[in-house]
Amino acid sequence: MAILYWLDLFGISVFAITGALVAREKQLDLFGVVVIGLVTAVGGGTLRDMMLGNTPVFWVRDPNYVVVAVLAALCTVVVVRYYELPQTALLVADAFGLALFTLLATEKVWQQGLSPLIAVMMGVISSVAGGIVRDLLSDRIPLILRSELYATASLAGATVFVLLAPINISLAAPLTLLTTLLLRLGAIRWHWTLPIFAMREKSS
Amino acid sequence: MAILYWLDLFGISVFAITGALVAREKQLDLFGVVVIGLVTAVGGGTLRDMMLGNTPVFWVRDPNYVVVAVLAALCTVVVVRYYELPQTALLVADAFGLALFTLLATEKVWQQGLSPLIAVMMGVISSVAGGIVRDLLSDRIPLILRSELYATASLAGATVFVLLAPINISLAAPLTLLTTLLLRLGAIRWHWTLPIFAMREKSS
Amino acid sequence: MAILYWLDLFGISVFAITGALVAREKQLDLFGVVVIGLVTAVGGGTLRDMMLGNTPVFWVRDPNYVVVAVLAALCTVVVVRYYELPQTALLVADAFGLALFTLLATEKVWQQGLSPLIAVMMGVISSVAGGIVRDLLSDRIPLILRSELYATASLAGATVFVLLAPINISLAAPLTLLTTLLLRLGAIRWHWTLPIFAMREKSS
Repeated sequence: MAILYWLDLFGISVFAITGALVAREKQLDLFGVVVIGLVTAVGGGTLRDMMLGNTPVFWVRDPNYVVVAVLAALCTVVVVRYYELPQTALLVADAFGLALFTLLATEKVWQQGLSPLIAVMMGVISSVAGGIVRDLLSDRIPLILRSELYATASLAGATVFVLLAPINISLAAPLTLLTTLLLRLGAIRWHWTLPIFAMREKSS
Repeated sequence: MAILYWLDLFGISVFAITGALVAREKQLDLFGVVVIGLVTAVGGGTLRDMMLGNTPVFWVRDPNYVVVAVLAALCTVVVVRYYELPQTALLVADAFGLALFTLLATEKVWQQGLSPLIAVMMGVISSVAGGIVRDLLSDRIPLILRSELYATASLAGATVFVLLAPINISLAAPLTLLTTLLLRLGAIRWHWTLPIFAMREKSS
Repeated sequence: MAILYWLDLFGISVFAITGALVAREKQLDLFGVVVIGLVTAVGGGTLRDMMLGNTPVFWVRDPNYVVVAVLAALCTVVVVRYYELPQTALLVADAFGLALFTLLATEKVWQQGLSPLIAVMMGVISSVAGGIVRDLLSDRIPLILRSELYATASLAGATVFVLLAPINISLAAPLTLLTTLLLRLGAIRWHWTLPIFAMREKSS
């Protein structure tokens, strides 16, 4: 559907913006900002496509994804010179991106007839791996591995999809989006976290 | 052979456990522990399959690998709450995992008719790349690149395989296992290392 | 052409040498030096081939690339024991490697009939990704993302290629080399940089 394509491009832009903002913190140059923005936006889907053998990867087949990500990163550079983006708006947009990528990737892999477990894993990988590579390139421990629910929200959404899709596909899509979105927004608002796997010595 | 499949799953479990234990040191949450365990267990084979074009990668074709790795990581979380795993048992188990992965990957690539050099490289990559990605995600310099013989033990084992396999395949398999295992266990016991490539200024 | 193949191997050697020298700074052992040299030399092309689905990747199809990279890294270890390589000679050789890889990769992808944008991206990725992975494995923030023009020189060269190639292919190749080389050498000599994407608070 055309609507899904536009939502996908929206998710790409949001992730490119978050990447550009991380690059700003690290004081990278213009090229670095574009690279980090691009990697954040397309990294997860690229890894998924390489693992599944869906090659050339999606943005080689449709360079619009690259164009949109680069433009979003460049616009970010210009805009934040004059106007500080409100932190909340960004986190909410990022939550939408997460929910969209989770739905789109899980659905795509599930349509290929792969097992539900693999569809869930690919949904999570597509939506979080870009952020992990962004953090690696920026030399910080991947936030995703120890912050509020993030990947877990994607995991929950993808699980909802593979459970509901065989029963009612038109219900599965919106509920996947809702599950991921609400879990992530709730986590931002109330600082939900998973239990830390502490060392025995430290917890006693 | 069925026995090889079970050995492979055993290697997967061992690496997932070592990954989970590294994640514990870094105080990651439950999800982070599972991710690091999974990446350590299947990362090397995933990279190998992507490089060879054996896609979808092995765990997409047989999700049992994912199930076993996730269960092993989760069990680790539960068990270490009550019982500290003895360091030695772990290192020995990890040495077995290293030897198994080296044998299984070298043999698989060699059977595909690729050159001995490539078979050796793929054997080493399959058995050590997971640990490298684990260390990158945990933000520490990959231990493999500067500890006791580890990748070198795998390299020696894989070399034994490609030298012996054309002559006597049924001898090549056990000797590959033995070479890797003994070199690694000896390195743990007597702290064998390769010469450090020091700077001239410092060595003079 | 045979000449292109030899130039390609020359680029591989140069990058393997720079990788080995970074590994020396980090005091890695012999195996670590060879791994870092190899990754620097073939990492970019490997990622490109995996993304495009040109698998098995180039060095699996032609192991000469591996042999040359390993030999170059080992020779570096031996040579620098007795003789300190002049920093300038190395930077100039690296600039040649960058220009060669940019030309060879952009041309190869363009010949496959992919869009100019993708050809440029693959040209840049092939020539810089190896260095990024080298820096990640050595636990330093990728230099490429915040030093003098480096990836930007590759980007400019690749862009020259896709603009000129449809008009005059025999002119496109040397001008691509020249553009990348002169930009990079100029950047080394006069410390050309791109503007830093500073935070608004800091720039005011």
